[in-house]
Amino acid sequence: MKLNDWLNNEIPNIANSLVDVHKTYFSIEKTIGFAGQEKIYKILENFRNALFPCLCEKELTFESRVNIGIGNKLRTSAIDLRDLIEKVISNEENLSSDNAKLNPDQVVMDLIGKFPEIRKMIQTDIQAAYNGDPATISTEEILFSYPSIQAITIHRISHELYKSGVPIIPRIMSEYAHNLTGIDIHPGATIGEYFFIDHGTGVVIGETCTIGKNVKIYQGVTLGAKSFPLDEDGNPIKGIKRHPDIEDNVVIYAGATILGGDTKIGHDSVIGGNIWLTQSVPPNSRVYQTQPSPKIKNDIE
Amino acid sequence: MKLNDWLNNEIPNIANSLVDVHKTYFSIEKTIGFAGQEKIYKILENFRNALFPCLCEKELTFESRVNIGIGNKLRTSAIDLRDLIEKVISNEENLSSDNAKLNPDQVVMDLIGKFPEIRKMIQTDIQAAYNGDPATISTEEILFSYPSIQAITIHRISHELYKSGVPIIPRIMSEYAHNLTGIDIHPGATIGEYFFIDHGTGVVIGETCTIGKNVKIYQGVTLGAKSFPLDEDGNPIKGIKRHPDIEDNVVIYAGATILGGDTKIGHDSVIGGNIWLTQSVPPNSRVYQTQPSPKIKNDIE
Amino acid sequence: MKLNDWLNNEIPNIANSLVDVHKTYFSIEKTIGFAGQEKIYKILENFRNALFPCLCEKELTFESRVNIGIGNKLRTSAIDLRDLIEKVISNEENLSSDNAKLNPDQVVMDLIGKFPEIRKMIQTDIQAAYNGDPATISTEEILFSYPSIQAITIHRISHELYKSGVPIIPRIMSEYAHNLTGIDIHPGATIGEYFFIDHGTGVVIGETCTIGKNVKIYQGVTLGAKSFPLDEDGNPIKGIKRHPDIEDNVVIYAGATILGGDTKIGHDSVIGGNIWLTQSVPPNSRVYQTQPSPKIKNDIE
Repeated sequence: MKLNDWLNNEIPNIANSLVDVHKTYFSIEKTIGFAGQEKIYKILENFRNALFPCLCEKELTFESRVNIGIGNKLRTSAIDLRDLIEKVISNEENLSSDNAKLNPDQVVMDLIGKFPEIRKMIQTDIQAAYNGDPATISTEEILFSYPSIQAITIHRISHELYKSGVPIIPRIMSEYAHNLTGIDIHPGATIGEYFFIDHGTGVVIGETCTIGKNVKIYQGVTLGAKSFPLDEDGNPIKGIKRHPDIEDNVVIYAGATILGGDTKIGHDSVIGGNIWLTQSVPPNSRVYQTQPSPKIKNDIE
Repeated sequence: MKLNDWLNNEIPNIANSLVDVHKTYFSIEKTIGFAGQEKIYKILENFRNALFPCLCEKELTFESRVNIGIGNKLRTSAIDLRDLIEKVISNEENLSSDNAKLNPDQVVMDLIGKFPEIRKMIQTDIQAAYNGDPATISTEEILFSYPSIQAITIHRISHELYKSGVPIIPRIMSEYAHNLTGIDIHPGATIGEYFFIDHGTGVVIGETCTIGKNVKIYQGVTLGAKSFPLDEDGNPIKGIKRHPDIEDNVVIYAGATILGGDTKIGHDSVIGGNIWLTQSVPPNSRVYQTQPSPKIKNDIE
Repeated sequence: MKLNDWLNNEIPNIANSLVDVHKTYFSIEKTIGFAGQEKIYKILENFRNALFPCLCEKELTFESRVNIGIGNKLRTSAIDLRDLIEKVISNEENLSSDNAKLNPDQVVMDLIGKFPEIRKMIQTDIQAAYNGDPATISTEEILFSYPSIQAITIHRISHELYKSGVPIIPRIMSEYAHNLTGIDIHPGATIGEYFFIDHGTGVVIGETCTIGKNVKIYQGVTLGAKSFPLDEDGNPIKGIKRHPDIEDNVVIYAGATILGGDTKIGHDSVIGGNIWLTQSVPPNSRVYQTQPSPKIKNDIE
């Protein structure tokens, strides 16, 4: 057993070497056993089950027990989330001066206390999907299957933690949504009610974006940054407004790219597919590109 | 323990409030405990294992037991699927007049009865991938790793349920495929044999699309709708032909967008990358855009 | 119980039929019970936990036990991987003449022996993400949440197996990364240190690509093939250089498409968003398209 012998001889050295490399770059006592991703995914699943009891497991079949089930899920996940926040803020590098006085208990109470309000917001998003997609015949279908609803549910939760100044955890949440849906919304983005993303794969919404009410976006849309300034050491300067503002009642069709922190799309505008836009447009605009006429050549002729 | 006290005091109210909000919008006795997504994912995994015994768990290592294993998987999942269909049609809002007389037992028998035929269809899709991708050296590699095969397998199952008039469940299936592969095929789309999608991320194929035999599509292709008409209340009118028809032997390169229910791509045509097409083209067409010449500037000069 | 009776009567025939169809196309004794995907995902998770101990499960909370935990994970997964390699090479169709003398034990020893070096490479990728993204404030956030790091970690492992000539398994690994991140990197691609992909959804990097050091790529970038030659039977010829070379210090913005095996992007170049490029450019180039000016029409006027 050549491999087995080799493993017995070499694995201890390789394991030591891997730990040594890790310790060079990361505080091992603070990151070891963090295992935060799996815990956060579980917390988010519990939160979704609390917000939408229809997604719950079988044992909650009887209505009389639903409230108890939701309560238990919220209680467990609240404690888990508080412990994770304590873990990530114990590493002071993760804290900017703004969130140095973060109180994990308070952050979790603030979040859970807002859940009924968040649930109502998401209902407006479900309604927007119903209004915006001729392919669906029921809001149940939207609730059970639309990636837009998964993404915005997780965003509306992670955005609250972002606003509270919690490091790292909101980004792990948004990347979980990105993995599930192909929709990449930075937890810093501010998004109004009645928001709908159709299909969604490839959508990118940057950290300092603001989006008004009743905005509809299609697959492949980027609301991104232009090039960004570097500091004296050549590192990007953090915390600058880099992404556009989208006002109420705007529709942005598939593949459009809108860039820049000074770019504002006025309310009730329509942005055409594949548009590349780095300037503001006034309210009620229709923005389109004269698509180059495709050349059509017939082999037989 | 500030958080613990707060949880004890507030969670019952919050849970009640969440259930109340949900009840405002959804029939709670019909949606509570639906938990349909996880069940449907499990059913699809069992169906895939039956269609491709090589994907099965370890206990099926002996060929003599394979048939029994497949049979057991089909039996269990057939019953589970029947029960789910009964659940979703118990909510009459999910039923259009067309499917009011849906018989869940018959739907499941029709589906499972077609599995050998569906399996043969998917073999044509595997062959199309082999023919269309120089990066592969075996059909086994395609079977084990190509997202196109995952997506089309789930589509060929969900499309049968869609044709039978089953609400909601086919869309949950297609969104599972979308999550796994980044390929978003509406279960309503009609797709012929020898179908291959290379890479696949960002592909969108709309509900009323028809696709002929031996069609090849690359990543980022949209077969979508133009704007759609609204009814008197401003809601989109459902059930209209909105998506294009693609005839046999067509190749559509990456990022092309083809829109509209009246748009037909004639057989044996090739549609170039990034094309934006809202008109029909005759058979044997080569459609390309004069890509604007990139401007190349050299910093050193 | 109409369905139950039908299942009892028909399932044995359907299961037989499904096995018969499978046997027509695949060697059943070699593929039955392969179940490779789930095993490979588990191996990759163990490898990631060994490379990044902070991602490990809870039981590894104490630093003194970390090395032991990592060692156990590596040992188990090494054996599992060796067994899988033996399984896939037992089917001689999977082997080209180049890898006919593949030694599974040696392949696994070579891979695991390189893990400390691979770990250091990935640290350069983490640093590149930190340098390239103003939205992050810590390398921990990158490690815990960035899809780029997930994708490149899996790529740096699968690429070693690809170079050793292992069939099928590297592609299953790369499709796992594709599923998790929307980033599709063929295991054959050669990628230098300090590599960063921002957002990532829709990125495609082909088999014969080479990428230098310190390259940064955004979402939706394709490094792909032009049309490829067919052999006398109409099958694509395998093993030809089909994808571009990207030299050091290149930035490629979102949605750019660079095609062809003869296409070389010179070092220190910047390729603009949505560029379509099928020719080489010299070092220090700035490549951009005159984006057609969007037409802006105001409804009110």
